[in-house]
Amino acid sequence: MKNKTNIISKIKSRLTNDSKKEWPGLINAYKDFLPINDSTPIVSLKEGNTPLIRAKSLEKHIGRGVKIYLKYDGLNPTGSFKDRGMTMAISKAKEEGSKAVICASTGNTSASAAAYAKRAGMKAFVLIPDGYVAQGKLAQALVYGAEVLAINGNFDKALEMVQSIAEDYPITLVNSVNPYRLQGQKTAAFEIIDELGEAPEWLCIPVGNGGNITAYWMGFNEYFNQKKTKKLPKMMGFQALGSAPLVFNKLVKNPETIATAIRIGNPVNWKKAVEAKQNSLGSFEAVTESEIIEAYKLIGEEGIFCEPASAASVAGLIKIQKNLSDNSKVVCVLTGNGLKDPDCAINNNDAVFHTKLDPDLNKISKLMGF
Amino acid sequence: MKNKTNIISKIKSRLTNDSKKEWPGLINAYKDFLPINDSTPIVSLKEGNTPLIRAKSLEKHIGRGVKIYLKYDGLNPTGSFKDRGMTMAISKAKEEGSKAVICASTGNTSASAAAYAKRAGMKAFVLIPDGYVAQGKLAQALVYGAEVLAINGNFDKALEMVQSIAEDYPITLVNSVNPYRLQGQKTAAFEIIDELGEAPEWLCIPVGNGGNITAYWMGFNEYFNQKKTKKLPKMMGFQALGSAPLVFNKLVKNPETIATAIRIGNPVNWKKAVEAKQNSLGSFEAVTESEIIEAYKLIGEEGIFCEPASAASVAGLIKIQKNLSDNSKVVCVLTGNGLKDPDCAINNNDAVFHTKLDPDLNKISKLMGF
Repeated sequence: MKNKTNIISKIKSRLTNDSKKEWPGLINAYKDFLPINDSTPIVSLKEGNTPLIRAKSLEKHIGRGVKIYLKYDGLNPTGSFKDRGMTMAISKAKEEGSKAVICASTGNTSASAAAYAKRAGMKAFVLIPDGYVAQGKLAQALVYGAEVLAINGNFDKALEMVQSIAEDYPITLVNSVNPYRLQGQKTAAFEIIDELGEAPEWLCIPVGNGGNITAYWMGFNEYFNQKKTKKLPKMMGFQALGSAPLVFNKLVKNPETIATAIRIGNPVNWKKAVEAKQNSLGSFEAVTESEIIEAYKLIGEEGIFCEPASAASVAGLIKIQKNLSDNSKVVCVLTGNGLKDPDCAINNNDAVFHTKLDPDLNKISKLMGF
Repeated sequence: MKNKTNIISKIKSRLTNDSKKEWPGLINAYKDFLPINDSTPIVSLKEGNTPLIRAKSLEKHIGRGVKIYLKYDGLNPTGSFKDRGMTMAISKAKEEGSKAVICASTGNTSASAAAYAKRAGMKAFVLIPDGYVAQGKLAQALVYGAEVLAINGNFDKALEMVQSIAEDYPITLVNSVNPYRLQGQKTAAFEIIDELGEAPEWLCIPVGNGGNITAYWMGFNEYFNQKKTKKLPKMMGFQALGSAPLVFNKLVKNPETIATAIRIGNPVNWKKAVEAKQNSLGSFEAVTESEIIEAYKLIGEEGIFCEPASAASVAGLIKIQKNLSDNSKVVCVLTGNGLKDPDCAINNNDAVFHTKLDPDLNKISKLMGF
């Protein structure tokens, strides 16, 4: 009896400790699901394991017993979901002996590639559209020591160029055409099921290049096949109206939107993204700039700061909420941290902001309404 | 026998799942160590549980078998360690029926107070020094819907004013004079011990108002008393040379430094910070602006982007490394996310940045050295 009590107390203690256990990074956490082996050098900043936060104000807004969770992937090490794929892509590049990597980017990929490449002791080149990368993202690429090449052209042009360069020279391409990227990104779906115990009814997600929706769908299916969830979600992909090739099934020559992270007119993962939508009985929809900003502010009211592209997921949910059954569970993916694009917040908020005030107690108390 | 195997397999499965277990936020994770009760409404954004990242480039720099870990508290929900204290302060304010909170801030506290207050359905007023708050932090306070009052005066003046206002009117002060703030912040020390299995030899930390060094010391001691660590660290506090009241034991009228988060001339927790230093046999040292920037870049080379104030911890370690025994373990606290202050990165980096390039493959390949 005493022995049994001892064992139980030991188990309890391990379980308690485990809830505070170090997160080892997503490759170590999900290694059985990833194409790595014992000799893969794991390059990690402890990415993944990002919070799933209940969105109570949004739930009030939508009503009907719908439960809404925000998957806040902006809390990855470089502030976006790109880190999930980059830990895989850079680890595999290092395993293969690569000394340098290259990518085209609207900003988040370049930040992530630069950070992981530096950590791996590799050189990173990043091509970005000059003048169209949010300030925080540019700052990151520079601080992580990438060589940044800003071209007169958009993301699609930059991608075309890096693909050519990677074909002609000894340098690894780490855009989402790199298959390891999607492998890493699929772990976000695992985390959602691990936490909720099942897949949600809807997975709402911003769509630019189509890689992330593809990766999530892959992850949900792998867990479904392992019987870790009994159902699969509908994949609901949202694009900005001025940059919505998948919604209208038509290439966009000059995509335009405040949501710069999804300002992509010719998605590389076009076909896979369409398959994810079709096979999940999901949907693609366009959201306007003002719908994106409205959602961005609503997310701020939850106490969460995301970048404008991330808000497309919530904007889409609000737009087509009538299609959602009562009491459904929805996860909206917030792909990037709002701090990446502070200008957007400064130009789009409903806060009261008094500047250059005299430090006079009476005046300030009065201003505050006392 | 079969039964035993079953039990073991169930335990194994729980243990495995637990390593991927939802982090419930720091109040729920450490409730036995915090002044809450069953009726405390827990206001959380799942703060805490931030990564402790091995700094391998820095270790090479220092040598002698020293192990260096960076506690990257910039991955808290609003991007700084302030969230640790704010989840406690706002939960307790709500428990007490408060409808509004106020704070003075160099930026991080205002961002955190605004986010948690909004989540709790409370109003937040924040006083900041006009023109001296990094862009990202201001953006946050606005997006979280605080009422922002920017005064002609520094942090110390702003703090004096909010203390008066909180005395005269029904509004809760959430600066670090609020005792619940330090209670929440001490959990970072718990996390370090939970992960390393013991306290490090040195805890290097930036010091502004003196609250965080006080909170860490409290946390280390509580775990020591619970026998969760056999030793206590030396508390090594670093201030910017232009804003170093604790180092020189002299109030600074007009503190100046690029590290705006620790630009404080009259620390509220002066006495407690000195006690933490003395009782731990630690030290206070000043670091110059160029030492801070140098450390900031070295941290970037680890693939980590912190705000300039955070880099003071690493700058200090580098400065007084000779005092460190061989094979010691050191934890440097990175208090805030670099994305809070993108201008600092754009103005201080060694990266190669080419702008306005023609999208010409030959020219670009040549630029890249091929």
